[in-house]
Amino acid sequence: MTVDPQAGRVPEERSGGGVSRPSAITVRIVGTGLIGASIGLALSRRGFRVLLSDPSPTARALTADLGGGVVDDDTPCDVVFVAAPPDVAAAVVAEQLKRWPSAVVADVASVKQRIVDEVAASVDADHLRRYVGTHPMAGRERSGAVAARADLFEGRTWVVCPQDGTDPDSVALVQDLAHATGAAVVTMPADEHDAAVAVVSHLPQLAASAVASQLRELPDEAIVLSGGGIRDVTRIAESDPMLWTQILAGNASSVAPVLQRVVAQLNSVARSLQQLATDESAAPGSRGEVARLISDGQVGHARIPGKHGAAPATYATVIVPIPDEPGAFARLFNDVGDAGINLEDLRMEHGVGAPVGLVELSVLPAVVDRLRDVLEDKGWNVHA
Amino acid sequence: MTVDPQAGRVPEERSGGGVSRPSAITVRIVGTGLIGASIGLALSRRGFRVLLSDPSPTARALTADLGGGVVDDDTPCDVVFVAAPPDVAAAVVAEQLKRWPSAVVADVASVKQRIVDEVAASVDADHLRRYVGTHPMAGRERSGAVAARADLFEGRTWVVCPQDGTDPDSVALVQDLAHATGAAVVTMPADEHDAAVAVVSHLPQLAASAVASQLRELPDEAIVLSGGGIRDVTRIAESDPMLWTQILAGNASSVAPVLQRVVAQLNSVARSLQQLATDESAAPGSRGEVARLISDGQVGHARIPGKHGAAPATYATVIVPIPDEPGAFARLFNDVGDAGINLEDLRMEHGVGAPVGLVELSVLPAVVDRLRDVLEDKGWNVHA
Repeated sequence: MTVDPQAGRVPEERSGGGVSRPSAITVRIVGTGLIGASIGLALSRRGFRVLLSDPSPTARALTADLGGGVVDDDTPCDVVFVAAPPDVAAAVVAEQLKRWPSAVVADVASVKQRIVDEVAASVDADHLRRYVGTHPMAGRERSGAVAARADLFEGRTWVVCPQDGTDPDSVALVQDLAHATGAAVVTMPADEHDAAVAVVSHLPQLAASAVASQLRELPDEAIVLSGGGIRDVTRIAESDPMLWTQILAGNASSVAPVLQRVVAQLNSVARSLQQLATDESAAPGSRGEVARLISDGQVGHARIPGKHGAAPATYATVIVPIPDEPGAFARLFNDVGDAGINLEDLRMEHGVGAPVGLVELSVLPAVVDRLRDVLEDKGWNVHA
Repeated sequence: MTVDPQAGRVPEERSGGGVSRPSAITVRIVGTGLIGASIGLALSRRGFRVLLSDPSPTARALTADLGGGVVDDDTPCDVVFVAAPPDVAAAVVAEQLKRWPSAVVADVASVKQRIVDEVAASVDADHLRRYVGTHPMAGRERSGAVAARADLFEGRTWVVCPQDGTDPDSVALVQDLAHATGAAVVTMPADEHDAAVAVVSHLPQLAASAVASQLRELPDEAIVLSGGGIRDVTRIAESDPMLWTQILAGNASSVAPVLQRVVAQLNSVARSLQQLATDESAAPGSRGEVARLISDGQVGHARIPGKHGAAPATYATVIVPIPDEPGAFARLFNDVGDAGINLEDLRMEHGVGAPVGLVELSVLPAVVDRLRDVLEDKGWNVHA
């Protein structure tokens, strides 16, 4: 039995929020880049039948070789995941909706409202009911099928964006498949998704790129002073310009006003700093302007959820200097393990020119004393 | 024998770039907050005689109790570290130069040129020769003596900024003491330091705070989509507004032009996005404007030095999903240790709502295959 989303009821294979007989469902992946190939790998591993299409013979063959499915452009399917670049995603979705008139078609682009609008403009309402926009929030520094991983989505958020009139069974099937990859499924309308990622994803990318771009002309002696702060702030500045231009252009109407607010905010601080540089006493409100930005940042930062989507957690942090030599990590984490203590998070920091690293271990406050005692017993220099 | 920096020669205690008899050198710490108390702890541990002064009886007593020195306002000393807040540092330096006419006086504020200028305006040239501006680039989320650590400076950069006319022996003594705390000492003029930190430290702080401030009004459903990107970009937005207002105001003349460049850059991108949002076809150069920012960011980011100040390293990254349970880290790092492989860096990522963490291990490319083999042998799911 195959899933017939047109029938408007939950097929036997799917009940209790999961898919009970994956092998009965045929999934087509159109576009075997990093995301498409990773979906193929994840769903193949879970027992789904996966068919692969891609304009590049190399990409689709590689995905098949990795175990992501079989190359096949012609067999009918129950669900299609369109994993094409953002600027062509809508056209490919429309094409697939017409090609497989009983299949659910989902895309995985990072922007959603524009794609819904474009799909709606090129297919009729009956086709549109089978379209489900989604956004798996996973990625890597590397791209292409060669970087694909069956566990790319494990522990990541996968947003599903039904519109008015989207068939509920189509939505449920896509949610189940996203869940089957190990992702945490979050459901919200496309416009809310776009407004959210404009702030939590697209704005940070622009800020990171702008800060990093200022390093281009800096003397080597100045670059050497780079510490943990700028490394953190600019890590995502490594991202691919072509992909990000498509993402930002695709969400321009949500990103533009957010970026304009930040420009106004920073411009006001720049003016205050200019006044302070010229004549400190002549600018009574200037310090207040600077303080307000830093203070507002503290308030906003405190809202970011902690691990696993819980409320922002206040973990206790223990800092342990470790020698820069093989086995040092192993000894440290072995000793943490002996204490039976769960690490909530960890960070590693390096300075310039020193043969020592600092490892920051975050644990629940209740166990920090025991962790310190255990590590000190084992000879570590612990700072809690 | 005590060090007499006025004598213009290297005392016997110091040779070969180090201090051979620390107990012969008396160091005074003025201001026992996080940095001052940590210097006291670090130098006491290395055998220096440390005297503590602070307007707060609690802070100085706490530092003494922690082993950071003895409370004493009257005994003559060889070196004074002024660890007062940035906006009063110059006044305290001038006072200490007059109080101890044969001592070297160093400060530890994050901005340097303004302090040199203010000290120069309030003491004569003879006093000024004994002043050495420095900036230990270390800090923590917590402040005050209670957060002090003897190893706060281990592996961190400590910038020493001699001016024209600074006594070379005074500079050498301060460099030796900074080195004795475990820091990597970098020497450069005050104005170059200020221009460098404006870009690598103060600009990232402003960008992080501005991005984080945009989260204040965001609905909870949108905040949930926060991933690794915004967490990294906004981590330093936790910083203390009062301290940062002093730092930014103190370096206003270097920060203002850098921030103005970034404002112009982001404003231009915001305009391009606005054009793309209104009418995509009417804005042929708009995508180019967006692409240029991301691309410039890539170029700048690539200049950040790798671990230990080396050239930017291209490490190979291996990703290992680990269960969220006690001992999982220990097992993983024990297995890495068994392979005799040195980790160059590590990161941990969490998704929303999933009981699994992803650990990214960075190693030299030459050993990545061996690491993968070893971990797979031990049953880990490895992605290289």
